[in-house]
Amino acid sequence: MSLSAQDFLTDFHHTATIGATANGGVDRQAGTAKDGEIRSWFRDWGTERGYPVRVDSIGNMFMLAEWTPGVPFVLVGSHLDSQPLAGRFDGAYGVVAAMHVLREIDAEVQASGEKPSYNLGVVNWFNEEGARFAPSIMGSSVFVGLMNEQDTLSVSDSSGTRVGEALEGIGFLGTDPRPEVATYAEIHIEQGRILEREGIPLGTVDRSWYTQKLDIEVLGEQSHTGATSMADRRDALVAASKIVVMVNEVTEDFEEDTLLSSVGQMHIEPNSPIVVPRRVHLVADLRSDSQEIVQAARATLLEKFDVLAADHRVEVNVEDFDVRPPRHFQESGLELVEKLMADKGLDTRRIRTRAGHDAVALSTQVPSVLLFVPSVDGVSHCEREFTEDEDLVTGLDALTEVARALVDGALQD
Amino acid sequence: MSLSAQDFLTDFHHTATIGATANGGVDRQAGTAKDGEIRSWFRDWGTERGYPVRVDSIGNMFMLAEWTPGVPFVLVGSHLDSQPLAGRFDGAYGVVAAMHVLREIDAEVQASGEKPSYNLGVVNWFNEEGARFAPSIMGSSVFVGLMNEQDTLSVSDSSGTRVGEALEGIGFLGTDPRPEVATYAEIHIEQGRILEREGIPLGTVDRSWYTQKLDIEVLGEQSHTGATSMADRRDALVAASKIVVMVNEVTEDFEEDTLLSSVGQMHIEPNSPIVVPRRVHLVADLRSDSQEIVQAARATLLEKFDVLAADHRVEVNVEDFDVRPPRHFQESGLELVEKLMADKGLDTRRIRTRAGHDAVALSTQVPSVLLFVPSVDGVSHCEREFTEDEDLVTGLDALTEVARALVDGALQD
Repeated sequence: MSLSAQDFLTDFHHTATIGATANGGVDRQAGTAKDGEIRSWFRDWGTERGYPVRVDSIGNMFMLAEWTPGVPFVLVGSHLDSQPLAGRFDGAYGVVAAMHVLREIDAEVQASGEKPSYNLGVVNWFNEEGARFAPSIMGSSVFVGLMNEQDTLSVSDSSGTRVGEALEGIGFLGTDPRPEVATYAEIHIEQGRILEREGIPLGTVDRSWYTQKLDIEVLGEQSHTGATSMADRRDALVAASKIVVMVNEVTEDFEEDTLLSSVGQMHIEPNSPIVVPRRVHLVADLRSDSQEIVQAARATLLEKFDVLAADHRVEVNVEDFDVRPPRHFQESGLELVEKLMADKGLDTRRIRTRAGHDAVALSTQVPSVLLFVPSVDGVSHCEREFTEDEDLVTGLDALTEVARALVDGALQD
Repeated sequence: MSLSAQDFLTDFHHTATIGATANGGVDRQAGTAKDGEIRSWFRDWGTERGYPVRVDSIGNMFMLAEWTPGVPFVLVGSHLDSQPLAGRFDGAYGVVAAMHVLREIDAEVQASGEKPSYNLGVVNWFNEEGARFAPSIMGSSVFVGLMNEQDTLSVSDSSGTRVGEALEGIGFLGTDPRPEVATYAEIHIEQGRILEREGIPLGTVDRSWYTQKLDIEVLGEQSHTGATSMADRRDALVAASKIVVMVNEVTEDFEEDTLLSSVGQMHIEPNSPIVVPRRVHLVADLRSDSQEIVQAARATLLEKFDVLAADHRVEVNVEDFDVRPPRHFQESGLELVEKLMADKGLDTRRIRTRAGHDAVALSTQVPSVLLFVPSVDGVSHCEREFTEDEDLVTGLDALTEVARALVDGALQD
């Protein structure tokens, strides 16, 4: 293994020590102290090596090699925030790989004295995960104009702290200008089993799934668990529990794995062992490659919720939330990756992503490339998420090739 | 209405301003700042009127009229802590009524110069509600030896704060000796509809229901809601939701209202909209007048949980918790109340309590009386809990009569 690959692995494994959890994962939710700590590490890494780091007004960080002043940047990166009790690879891999791409290409530029057509920057997008502050993919969505910055800064976490306050609290509510972006590249673990099963080291993402959430509020009446007759109850938690089961079972109306659903978050009021709950707030997640399937499932659920509300004498309020149409990555980017990898003799395959990524947001504005490396058992958003060092390094080399082509003007003609 | 009744109502309605909620309720969970505030009010009320207030090492407060040093006390009282988003009457009514009983009887003693056989004290028991710190009925259970004091001081709330720390934090972890108790009386709202339906102003409690809780942990595996195939999931929340429904539906195996059940509390990990939950902790509550019914329901549920665990590839760990056998109040106390009220021409009826009360704990050690007044619609543990002023005053008068008899030695021969 090359020295530069070893350096990359050293830096990557170092990130896992920031917010490390008991079982080998990390917990660095956006805007928390641990997010602040890894951001400081990212900034110091850049400035120590002579790359200025800008922070914009939604907390995105840009580490820049501005070889030619005034020329737009190829941005490469991902996110350093994580889910609670998350794996070490999701996001961090893409950022640390991008840092080493920058170092490698900058060394080549310094050695040759020849300036590429575009400048190069590494980006750490704010709050890709959407765990503490919903929805996800915040920083990159504000960057490309899919989300309004002021509204986003006002989003509150469950304890009432706003995005703006949290960023200010960790010292990362910046005022720097955003770099002008020419093209974008990102590498990520697959979060699925396709590459592992097929033994292919690199995937190139052609499109994302249609996804949407339902923000659901169930309103019952608070009462004493011991003193209230069963017939007199308006139990918000019993009704909400049936909703969780309905959201799970609606997938059975469709072919296997054409629809994915879940309820991951639920808040119960007042949440005391001796009180029948008055209110439950929950978020359901529906995803499919087909918009029609998500919409059919949504319609089925809304009908069932109406019947449930009447049966249980509760109110069920539902709002569509975080609706994301499928996005196609540019064909030119897919072909570029395929050509470059064929030249290296590396197998690739086109792949769809069910999960959201910053690259999906970027692709709405500039030509963008999203690469996947294999992930053991396809598990993610959990502490046992794992990718082999060898696969990480193969991905780093691929990303370096792509970035080299991009700074030389590929996808710009 | 008498001046003393008006004073009582003024004091009672004042307690509702401490920890007042938006919709006319209160929130004074045990050991919180608001609990500290009402405790200070209670202490000041006593000391200003010449009644010393002792605080013991589990936070129980005793406001004492010690007419004859060394003689045991008749204790009268209830609790000033509340559920979250609770009603104004539960607990506070019994304490404020007891304070005015003390004032009334002490005035009589001072006027007549004749000392009764027993001294008289008002008690505010620590943490009757068990909302922040489980289980409920803590202070009185430690007082009578049903719970171990050191274990109880070490109980943690959901954020890891212990009972002892919380009491110390609000300045109510005392060191005063506990008064010796001769007999106990308490008045409370019914938390049911029987008195209201039958138009009877006073109930006298003859026994409590058999109650128990199940502490249930569901262990699945955390994963990505978008990237994980439905068949690969081990979703702790889907399984927990089915448990909530099972706990609710098990009541249908028995005659209406012979079994009450509920799940009031549930904690989900990691509780993020984009993560399949790894762990859910929930508390189920089972209550019946019949021990056999609770045990049959428990057996049915445990069997169903086993099938569920296998079906969903999750682990379900269940522990019995807070098991309380039915307790009979002393027949002599019931007959005393019936005789006193008959003399006043006031209708009473014997009544069972499904809810736990401090008086139930006290009845295991000394002759005890528990009185109920009507509660509109029978609702409690919610902000719309309500009892008419007139019914509160009728109850106060009844409690005064009972306390007068107790300090004169009734139930002691």
